[in-house]
Amino acid sequence: MTCELCTLPQGVVLHQDDKLTVLAVDEAGFPGFCRVVWKEHVAELGDLSDADRAWLLDWVVRTERAIRHVMQPDKINLASLGNMVPHLHWHIIPRFRDDSRFPLPIWAPAQREWPDLIARLQAALDATA
Amino acid sequence: MTCELCTLPQGVVLHQDDKLTVLAVDEAGFPGFCRVVWKEHVAELGDLSDADRAWLLDWVVRTERAIRHVMQPDKINLASLGNMVPHLHWHIIPRFRDDSRFPLPIWAPAQREWPDLIARLQAALDATA
Repeated sequence: MTCELCTLPQGVVLHQDDKLTVLAVDEAGFPGFCRVVWKEHVAELGDLSDADRAWLLDWVVRTERAIRHVMQPDKINLASLGNMVPHLHWHIIPRFRDDSRFPLPIWAPAQREWPDLIARLQAALDATA
Repeated sequence: MTCELCTLPQGVVLHQDDKLTVLAVDEAGFPGFCRVVWKEHVAELGDLSDADRAWLLDWVVRTERAIRHVMQPDKINLASLGNMVPHLHWHIIPRFRDDSRFPLPIWAPAQREWPDLIARLQAALDATA
């Protein structure tokens, strides 16, 4: 079996060590979206040893704090799903009140254009006319 | 501000201590869905002390393991979102290949009737005729 997270984790590497990789990923409409990918091919958090689990979750929280420090999002969403790729990884997602899904999860249908930026640019430009 | 998770966490209490509550919740189509609700009104995981965070995540993993032991799901989904109710809580969700959204997150549009149970019951009943 070929697992894309064993071979090709996509994104800009922010940190890596022998256990995990922290990536900034390019998800349209969700700037600052990061992933922490465990290097070993393991499916579930509960499959890790206590020490490995603590290490992984420590980096999830470090990533959360870095995102909050830089972006001041309205909320952080954390998720480890892995239904498509059952290789342990965490999504750390800064959420903003005007993002396309807020307050729904990012996987819900879009509620609005994100971040209403076009309309706001248009209004600002119109105001100069 | 009234926070529903401060006052009225819904579900069958499976465990509680002075820090948190583990609940079995009744989410249609997702039997075995559990929540771990932190008692103090805190928004983000990264706001907890290291000891509190370890305690919370330990109970998240204990709940994951209990669900896996009882239900043998195809996957576990873990998520802490809190966009609607910014009071720290975790979803621990057993996922099955024939649930209504698999392999998408449970918040995505339905992919099928869950768990095709009606059709399978119908076929089984028809086979007896």
